[in-house]
Amino acid sequence: MRAAVFHDAHDIRIENVDAPTDVGPGEVLLRPFWCGICGTDLHEYAAGPIVIPTEAHALTGASAPQILGHEFSGEVLEVGAGVTNVVPGQRVSVMPILACGHCFYCQRGLGHLCVNMACVGLSYAWGGIAELAVVPATHVFALPDALTDEQGALVEPTAVAAYGVDSAGVRPGDAVLITGAGPIGALASIYAASLGARVFISEVNPVRAALARSLDVGEVLDPSAVDVIEVLRDATGGIGVDQVVECSGNERALQTALDAVRSAGRVTQTGLHTRPASIDPMILAQREITYNGTWCYRLTDWPRIIGLIADRGLPVDKVVTGRIGAADLVEKGFEVLLSPKGEQVKVLVNAR
Amino acid sequence: MRAAVFHDAHDIRIENVDAPTDVGPGEVLLRPFWCGICGTDLHEYAAGPIVIPTEAHALTGASAPQILGHEFSGEVLEVGAGVTNVVPGQRVSVMPILACGHCFYCQRGLGHLCVNMACVGLSYAWGGIAELAVVPATHVFALPDALTDEQGALVEPTAVAAYGVDSAGVRPGDAVLITGAGPIGALASIYAASLGARVFISEVNPVRAALARSLDVGEVLDPSAVDVIEVLRDATGGIGVDQVVECSGNERALQTALDAVRSAGRVTQTGLHTRPASIDPMILAQREITYNGTWCYRLTDWPRIIGLIADRGLPVDKVVTGRIGAADLVEKGFEVLLSPKGEQVKVLVNAR
Ligand SMILES: [Zn+2]
Ligand SMILES: [Zn+2]
Repeated sequence: MRAAVFHDAHDIRIENVDAPTDVGPGEVLLRPFWCGICGTDLHEYAAGPIVIPTEAHALTGASAPQILGHEFSGEVLEVGAGVTNVVPGQRVSVMPILACGHCFYCQRGLGHLCVNMACVGLSYAWGGIAELAVVPATHVFALPDALTDEQGALVEPTAVAAYGVDSAGVRPGDAVLITGAGPIGALASIYAASLGARVFISEVNPVRAALARSLDVGEVLDPSAVDVIEVLRDATGGIGVDQVVECSGNERALQTALDAVRSAGRVTQTGLHTRPASIDPMILAQREITYNGTWCYRLTDWPRIIGLIADRGLPVDKVVTGRIGAADLVEKGFEVLLSPKGEQVKVLVNAR
Repeated sequence: MRAAVFHDAHDIRIENVDAPTDVGPGEVLLRPFWCGICGTDLHEYAAGPIVIPTEAHALTGASAPQILGHEFSGEVLEVGAGVTNVVPGQRVSVMPILACGHCFYCQRGLGHLCVNMACVGLSYAWGGIAELAVVPATHVFALPDALTDEQGALVEPTAVAAYGVDSAGVRPGDAVLITGAGPIGALASIYAASLGARVFISEVNPVRAALARSLDVGEVLDPSAVDVIEVLRDATGGIGVDQVVECSGNERALQTALDAVRSAGRVTQTGLHTRPASIDPMILAQREITYNGTWCYRLTDWPRIIGLIADRGLPVDKVVTGRIGAADLVEKGFEVLLSPKGEQVKVLVNAR
């Protein structure tokens, strides 16, 4: 079967690999529809292997070469013995994180912080950018008719974004700043607006700012053109926003976040920074700011996110700016997404 | 009457000022017992006026010269019309923060973040290092017999310390690191131990480390002699501590805090930093650390703190390393406390 296989940094190949021959007890054989390219994939391509193991992974035994893709939807082709939650023909999304179940964090219900964590498409025998994939039935969730195949591939980044917003404590009526309108920032904006918050989005890149405006969920501010702090103070009676969800991974955005939030407000770090940042601990104390990070999502949140997209009609697929076939994965996917122009936000791949 | 009066930086005088002549409705006339010298007082002496107003304070009309002292206990001498919570002869502690009641924060129950905040002994007609003081009856709380006069003067720093520990979410059985064993760190250690937490204290200054050891509430670690992170990992099965209360205001201690805390743990900033610090936002995300600041204390916590010291017999007065008369305030109080040797932790002053 055809699959996108990571061999090394800058060495991702579309090649023929052996198709899965066996669907074991508790497993599900899928035909992936769409699969998103994620920031983690980009890091692996640019500077990996980082997350992808080079020796057998402790939990799954997987190692490079690795079939890529962990944000995907698909159709169930076959189910193994004992599988009762899905049947062949059903459309599903895959929750890709595999937790060990017995480490300190797993035993406390924090599987997303599992010290032995593996992930489909990164450290597991199969991935979503392939004609076929086998995953545990526990990680497969049926999609309601209201969700398109594309939206099914966006459950994963939507879960990441929603977790950031939830963790920031955003409530109806709150004013929230989302810094950065990449896929996570855009999805966080959609989700925060759906909660009834007043959403402000800061984004310096014109392509991403235009996408954010097209979502029509809040006011989009260009930090290179306006004083974001001043605009937000004016909009909040001089007080500042109640929360910030920092989705850019940029130090200047973090500074803006800490300046923009009101006393006793919260800044949530959902974007990934690649270097240390300078902050002033005095203002955290004096203004009682809470600055907290989020990682992935609570694994148990998956069905809730599917339900929200379906029931509230969250237009999560509006963040998709490119749809490509596997043959174009490197040239029109990775290379374009890594370009500093940022002309693509979320690219979906189809391996069929 | 005799009082310690702030005129300017390095200009605090023990002088005769007019005694209060009138106890208005809702007011209480006190004879202060002991009054603690606080970090804020030290900053005013070293580099003020900072908090002390030079023009009439919006809420109280006060301005320098200012009678100092906001951590004090005393005896009620006289009560004004309508005062029912205390009677003459009663021993009390004074909650010194005056909130406006109508600003954004006051209206949300966050008077300790009041934008118009004033404070007895900093921006109010009277202060605790004086033979007499008049304060609102709403800010006066009767001391049970179980509390000494000294302990009554320590309710304020104990409230600050306890708020840091509470805000960190310390629970029985948790492992908590307190960085810095100045007055707040020492009191935080006493309070955290009383909650049933396993307490570790890091302190590089030998005088303060010795004081921390004498409290007998946890393990005291010298970062210049041991690898604090390694000791804490060993003590927690390789995981790290559940919380850190950063009481030192030191960048290196903050780094230790972020390294020492386990994933999904919390670092609470209660000590005041005087300059920016470098942190790695990536680890906040990847390890889901919450880093939050606390300022003063919830104003409504005052009676709870008095009750705790009384009912649990918290030995808060063990942090007192000096007791002086007003005549010695500058030489044996401010100058010694500002010395880098750190040979004093908490100094109490008596103006009688
Ligand atoms: Zn685990
Ligand atoms: Zn107020």
